[in-house]
Amino acid sequence: MSITFSSPAGLDHDSLEEGTVFAPRFDSRGLVTAVTVEAASGAVLMLAHMNAEALARTLETGEVHYYSRSRGTLWKKGETSGEIQKLVEIRTDCDQDALLVLVEQTGRGAACHTGRRSCFYRRVEVADGAAGLVDTGEPRLFDPAEVYKL
Amino acid sequence: MSITFSSPAGLDHDSLEEGTVFAPRFDSRGLVTAVTVEAASGAVLMLAHMNAEALARTLETGEVHYYSRSRGTLWKKGETSGEIQKLVEIRTDCDQDALLVLVEQTGRGAACHTGRRSCFYRRVEVADGAAGLVDTGEPRLFDPAEVYKL
Repeated sequence: MSITFSSPAGLDHDSLEEGTVFAPRFDSRGLVTAVTVEAASGAVLMLAHMNAEALARTLETGEVHYYSRSRGTLWKKGETSGEIQKLVEIRTDCDQDALLVLVEQTGRGAACHTGRRSCFYRRVEVADGAAGLVDTGEPRLFDPAEVYKL
Repeated sequence: MSITFSSPAGLDHDSLEEGTVFAPRFDSRGLVTAVTVEAASGAVLMLAHMNAEALARTLETGEVHYYSRSRGTLWKKGETSGEIQKLVEIRTDCDQDALLVLVEQTGRGAACHTGRRSCFYRRVEVADGAAGLVDTGEPRLFDPAEVYKL
């Protein structure tokens, strides 16, 4: 059994934004953007993309799947690293082209392939009219060279 | 004076992911994805896009600007509604194709054009193999018909 969702084609504006029909607006590549948040802490862990298959598998299995744009394949998060994301809740935004994915981050608690909890570990700072990055000091929870056998 | 940032062209993988050079990886349309979070509460408010101009204006003015894909123009958030977003901090992700924008949401505290605090006011629920939406009950902080003179 595969979970189905509706097509946004023919859905009027009010139904899209205020209704109960889930009609994800996949883009021309068949993708929606997913923002993944750790449910317990509220921390934004990562930003990735889902195609219809990744979204259906996520809802069916309770484990988060994405679509890897670089590899061009379905990607079960944590398949290599062990950092599986257990689905807590999915929300959609007003115009249904983005998803908020609330998860329990299992494994060592590192969503980022660099071994950190979150991918957002550097902040932008401006000095003398030029913007640079400063590390926020988020610790590495695993060694990527070891986990990915680089 | 306009704030400058680097080009990712020629930047090696380690510098991109671990370095101090801010080199946003704008896509073929010249955009990066921005996830906007209310700094005080940690709530994810919205997902939008920035081009280089929107990003520079945001850093220069301390008020958040996006690029509207539907209108094809620079978009100062809150220009019509009054719901200005004051910049607290910008972070970039590991491969620098996404931004986390921490803001103070001014006005009535509504980032969404529907009048709600967050655009993510509906959650996905699966029943009998079909996914639908359920309103989470997030209140409207303004009446969009009045604010946008619809």
